[in-house]
Amino acid sequence: MRVLALLDGTPADPDAPLIRVDDLGLLRGDGVFETILVVGGEPRELGPHLDRLARSAAMLDMPEPDLAAFRRAVDLVLGTWSGGPEIAVKLVFTRGVEGGDGTPTGFALGMDISPKVIAQRAGGISAVTLERGIEPGLAERAPWLLLGAKSLSYAVNMAALREAERRGADEVVFTTSSGSVLEGPTSTLVLARGRTLTTPPSTLGILPGTTQAALFRAAERAGWSVEVAPVDVAELYPADGVFLVSSVRKITRVHTLDGKALPDSTGLHTVLDGLYESEY
Amino acid sequence: MRVLALLDGTPADPDAPLIRVDDLGLLRGDGVFETILVVGGEPRELGPHLDRLARSAAMLDMPEPDLAAFRRAVDLVLGTWSGGPEIAVKLVFTRGVEGGDGTPTGFALGMDISPKVIAQRAGGISAVTLERGIEPGLAERAPWLLLGAKSLSYAVNMAALREAERRGADEVVFTTSSGSVLEGPTSTLVLARGRTLTTPPSTLGILPGTTQAALFRAAERAGWSVEVAPVDVAELYPADGVFLVSSVRKITRVHTLDGKALPDSTGLHTVLDGLYESEY
Repeated sequence: MRVLALLDGTPADPDAPLIRVDDLGLLRGDGVFETILVVGGEPRELGPHLDRLARSAAMLDMPEPDLAAFRRAVDLVLGTWSGGPEIAVKLVFTRGVEGGDGTPTGFALGMDISPKVIAQRAGGISAVTLERGIEPGLAERAPWLLLGAKSLSYAVNMAALREAERRGADEVVFTTSSGSVLEGPTSTLVLARGRTLTTPPSTLGILPGTTQAALFRAAERAGWSVEVAPVDVAELYPADGVFLVSSVRKITRVHTLDGKALPDSTGLHTVLDGLYESEY
Repeated sequence: MRVLALLDGTPADPDAPLIRVDDLGLLRGDGVFETILVVGGEPRELGPHLDRLARSAAMLDMPEPDLAAFRRAVDLVLGTWSGGPEIAVKLVFTRGVEGGDGTPTGFALGMDISPKVIAQRAGGISAVTLERGIEPGLAERAPWLLLGAKSLSYAVNMAALREAERRGADEVVFTTSSGSVLEGPTSTLVLARGRTLTTPPSTLGILPGTTQAALFRAAERAGWSVEVAPVDVAELYPADGVFLVSSVRKITRVHTLDGKALPDSTGLHTVLDGLYESEY
């Protein structure tokens, strides 16, 4: 099932053509987005998602998104939804039509969670490491590369996932050429060692994760240590658990990396998933 | 003036909504494009543009574009056009709607050339060098980064142009962090020294230029030497001429780089422009 609400507060048919061919979101991937998980009618981390949408838009020198209007669009989607208990709501905000008056295009699109993601939440995933062409320092030195902005220009992220599939894997862990861990194409990497969780710093040019932040909040409250620190690929193999986390996939454990089985983290996954769920 | 033709051969209103919100071209910048210059009803380098569209699509693992259908769409735009003697025709080809049957979205959109570009063709441009975060070898090592594909994920190219504007310049020359010249965000760099033209190799992860190829063809026939070879930023300052070339801007001379005036290449520009125009 899919439900669509436009930023002006009107419902719309998701199967109808609604975007002009000269929308810069289409012609140039020039816009930003967020994907929010809704469970039992409650959006998770809505505030942090909206904040990140605004931050991404600022990185692209776009007009400030009307967050109240996005909230209303989300409410409209939830009010109309008659599908299952979980919804992925995608917020999209583009620079509007080329040569237009600068009015951005915006909408909220509610969708079912794919069966594949549901299966991966339970069964875990295999991943491959792929170089991302980002070196430490680049993001701060070259802000025009938009590293760490959640822009609509995601063709590379999608190509990396196809490369993973070619290699017989489900997912990707992006790395620097010197073997430092970055993130997944649509997820944040979290590493567990003992009762410490680690995630790479967003200053590397990666997206600060909303789900990772929620997990760290819950873990810290439960007495775990959490750290934001560089992680080498070599550190992933002996770790107690490697997880790719995102709104829609929640806490998904990586059971195989570059063809090698990682230590069984099934029990740890149950613990972390419980911590994460305790936030809601 | 703007004229639109869909890939299925039907004309359409460019101001009407025609694209679904779940088109992957919009949601993920997942598609490819070309921009073709038409002068006096004749498309320039149509074959090379269509070949490059197909090559970009292959790099993105997209279905092969129906080039005959794109030719018909271009013809339809030209047959309907009642504006000025020059048209920029943009071809767009996306992966189609998310979770759909894989039918790509495609169209040809004819547009006027902007007065700004017309002025820059005559008066030249100022440019700034900006790091692109691509090192030699990366494109071949990591094809999933889609370096050298003309994808719809152009948010970084647009951000670089805004950075140039902030620095008081018109255009950008992308460089590696070690100071090797790459390309412009929407153009190819050509350097003239004596009667030799040089452009950086596409193996660096940049787009092979259709206009640069046409210029080189004409120059070679006129007795010039042409070479595809790495160029350092330092080589740009003493050169006889630095040019950013593309279909729509043709051969545009760079008169100022990073705030420093380059040697006057007005005469040289006239010569090269004449060579280029002699191709048509």
